[in-house]
Amino acid sequence: MKHTSTYTTQMDAARRGILTPELQAVALKEHISEQHLMQLVAEGKVVICANKKHTCLSPEGIGSMLRTKINVNLGISRDCKDYNIEMQKVMSAVRMGAEAIMDLSSHGNTRPFRQKLTAECPVMIGTVPVYDSVIHYQRDLATLTAKDFIDVIRMHAEDGVDFVTVHCGITRKTIEQIRTHNRKMNIVSRGGSLVFAWMSMTGEENPFYEYFDEILDICEEYDVTLSLGDACRPGCLADATDVCQIEELVRLGELTKRAWAHNVQVMIEGPGHMPMNQIAANMEIQKTLCMGAPFYVLGPLVTDIAPGYDHITGAIGGAIAAMNGASFLCYVTPAEHLALPNVEDVKQGIIASKIAAHAADIAKGIPGAKDIDDRMADARRALDWDAQFACALDPETAKQIRNSRRPEDDHSDTCSMCGKFCAVRSINKALAGEYIDIL
Amino acid sequence: MKHTSTYTTQMDAARRGILTPELQAVALKEHISEQHLMQLVAEGKVVICANKKHTCLSPEGIGSMLRTKINVNLGISRDCKDYNIEMQKVMSAVRMGAEAIMDLSSHGNTRPFRQKLTAECPVMIGTVPVYDSVIHYQRDLATLTAKDFIDVIRMHAEDGVDFVTVHCGITRKTIEQIRTHNRKMNIVSRGGSLVFAWMSMTGEENPFYEYFDEILDICEEYDVTLSLGDACRPGCLADATDVCQIEELVRLGELTKRAWAHNVQVMIEGPGHMPMNQIAANMEIQKTLCMGAPFYVLGPLVTDIAPGYDHITGAIGGAIAAMNGASFLCYVTPAEHLALPNVEDVKQGIIASKIAAHAADIAKGIPGAKDIDDRMADARRALDWDAQFACALDPETAKQIRNSRRPEDDHSDTCSMCGKFCAVRSINKALAGEYIDIL
Repeated sequence: MKHTSTYTTQMDAARRGILTPELQAVALKEHISEQHLMQLVAEGKVVICANKKHTCLSPEGIGSMLRTKINVNLGISRDCKDYNIEMQKVMSAVRMGAEAIMDLSSHGNTRPFRQKLTAECPVMIGTVPVYDSVIHYQRDLATLTAKDFIDVIRMHAEDGVDFVTVHCGITRKTIEQIRTHNRKMNIVSRGGSLVFAWMSMTGEENPFYEYFDEILDICEEYDVTLSLGDACRPGCLADATDVCQIEELVRLGELTKRAWAHNVQVMIEGPGHMPMNQIAANMEIQKTLCMGAPFYVLGPLVTDIAPGYDHITGAIGGAIAAMNGASFLCYVTPAEHLALPNVEDVKQGIIASKIAAHAADIAKGIPGAKDIDDRMADARRALDWDAQFACALDPETAKQIRNSRRPEDDHSDTCSMCGKFCAVRSINKALAGEYIDIL
Repeated sequence: MKHTSTYTTQMDAARRGILTPELQAVALKEHISEQHLMQLVAEGKVVICANKKHTCLSPEGIGSMLRTKINVNLGISRDCKDYNIEMQKVMSAVRMGAEAIMDLSSHGNTRPFRQKLTAECPVMIGTVPVYDSVIHYQRDLATLTAKDFIDVIRMHAEDGVDFVTVHCGITRKTIEQIRTHNRKMNIVSRGGSLVFAWMSMTGEENPFYEYFDEILDICEEYDVTLSLGDACRPGCLADATDVCQIEELVRLGELTKRAWAHNVQVMIEGPGHMPMNQIAANMEIQKTLCMGAPFYVLGPLVTDIAPGYDHITGAIGGAIAAMNGASFLCYVTPAEHLALPNVEDVKQGIIASKIAAHAADIAKGIPGAKDIDDRMADARRALDWDAQFACALDPETAKQIRNSRRPEDDHSDTCSMCGKFCAVRSINKALAGEYIDIL
């Protein structure tokens, strides 16, 4: 039973003690009491991104005391304009357990693809409306008005998008700061760079900052969660945790308060590229400056020198970030910094992110997180390969590797890594008092 | 100029203030003063694994204040007995920057391959002599004597092996402990399981523990570094940091003292499978119990459920371990738990380990570690692709990904990820006061 008439957003409902179907569903998934979850949503520490128009959504909560969620970026672009390939990536991402998909389409007729997503896809859908502005109007950036940008946000809200990234934390002051601070990478946020470019060309203030209240009205009406974008997220280790990044975070904290005053749900977007030793401190700073609003991180990538392997640099940073308080990981694929990811890159990116999220959930002590690892250990001790595959994050790949290189004399109980030298086999025999043949 | 007549081991030389050519070479590589390095070697906090017979060695130091080193496991086995394929893996590992290779051969005529390695290979060579015992004598495990095992260590020392793993930390008491403690995975160390199996079948004490002094004599004579194996390293998250693991570590600390009294260099081997939140504590415990002896870790793998992707679970754990004090990472390949790694698996394992080691070195503040990341950032800001590839850990893969999917209108300055939406391009134009065309 929905009570859409009696509340605006999930935050509004939680603050008024109204139990929404979405909150009930999330509480069930997370093994948390409805009362506790309601309090977290009321305080802004958990968001339930659920646009009222996205009716096929299977809702999820995002917050540091819940399971860590992952997001997959997809979308039509000039260099990959095949809708079918993008839908194939979408369905495979959903199958592999992504909880969110951001449609970053930047080419062609973007609306039907976005509408198809919110009509058919059970996971949270996010967008970055500023990307779509240039495309939607088919006018060059400098010719767009503040109202044009806001109207695109409204269109995305009407289309059922659950969360939108808005780069409202940079202002005209940021232009000077970037000029004088001599960052190595200046601004690497794609949306942030468009806002920066527009401000530079027009001489006007950031429309997402100036008209923030209008954005809040739209978000409140449809229950769109605001994902406050970090235009100044560090694009290399040298820029990490610098004054540009932290000053923007301060501003995002101020905007969070304004959003919460309108019952609008908020996530904060975060780094980026960052040396490992700075990650925990960054999570703490975000928690205090943004009063516990969920932290949505891209990476962090813990070194700059691994193009082709940034799903690994991102998994290292993401795992540490999530262990220390981040609640939402944006996947990074092996193609990052190099090219558009293909279907295989998307898969590799998802698996790496899921490893990071799961490892962090175990480290954080999320109830039940380690159960599947315990079942895997039991299966390994028993040398029960079917049971091992059943616990594997990617059973097909595991099966394929083992079966492509079986032991020569095909002891079905061992693998070709050790053959009769298998430690598990030896110990099982020793504990059973059996003779142990190795040769 | 070598002073082989005037000292036994590198530790002996350092303690007597003798500057060895190996110590000089390492000091130069690590940008550390000879005096400081000599003190660390004298105290056992750095080892220079350099068998006097391994004359083609380019020496490296291992210790937490030096660059993190990585090891690659290879070797002839029943299921991969092609010496040429193994040598191909060796040469590719050396090219990719592995600092050590462990020859874990467990089939056929192992000696010529081992001798070829120490005759031709400039990196540290390690072995696990207990594997070779069964193979060398071609007799079943239960028929071997304590003397047989020790004789194989001597043979490896004579062959020029720089470090040997010896599982001397388990005793007959461990058999009872494993029986009663109900670990999920009991013993997963291959060498440890052989020792355990031999003790179970013969009723005798662990020969590597009982005849530890004879092993020290051999190590002192050839300057073989002892790598004290952790038979009880956790094989799943559930067994991590349990009494079996920690009690063995206590014993390894005692044996470290005995080795140091003979001027024998020592490393300690460590976990294994471990939840992320336990890693830092484990590094601290090892430092105190083993008085700063270098920690050589396998993983740790931060979840059990990712067969096919354990190079990633190992990179996450290894990076955190090295940041917190581990100094030597054993690579883990995607084939771990499933099959013998093939050439591609070896490559993936090496890259993942190098990412972990490098990220940790940056986090630890190893002087100069971040320089190449800074050069990469400069190349990215300039959209200078050749300079980017020159800084990449794996330039060929990076090049291949970019070139396989170039932007349609082939702006040579961007990539197909963003095309004209490229943030770097927009900001460069904005800062130059240029018009920014996006469409």
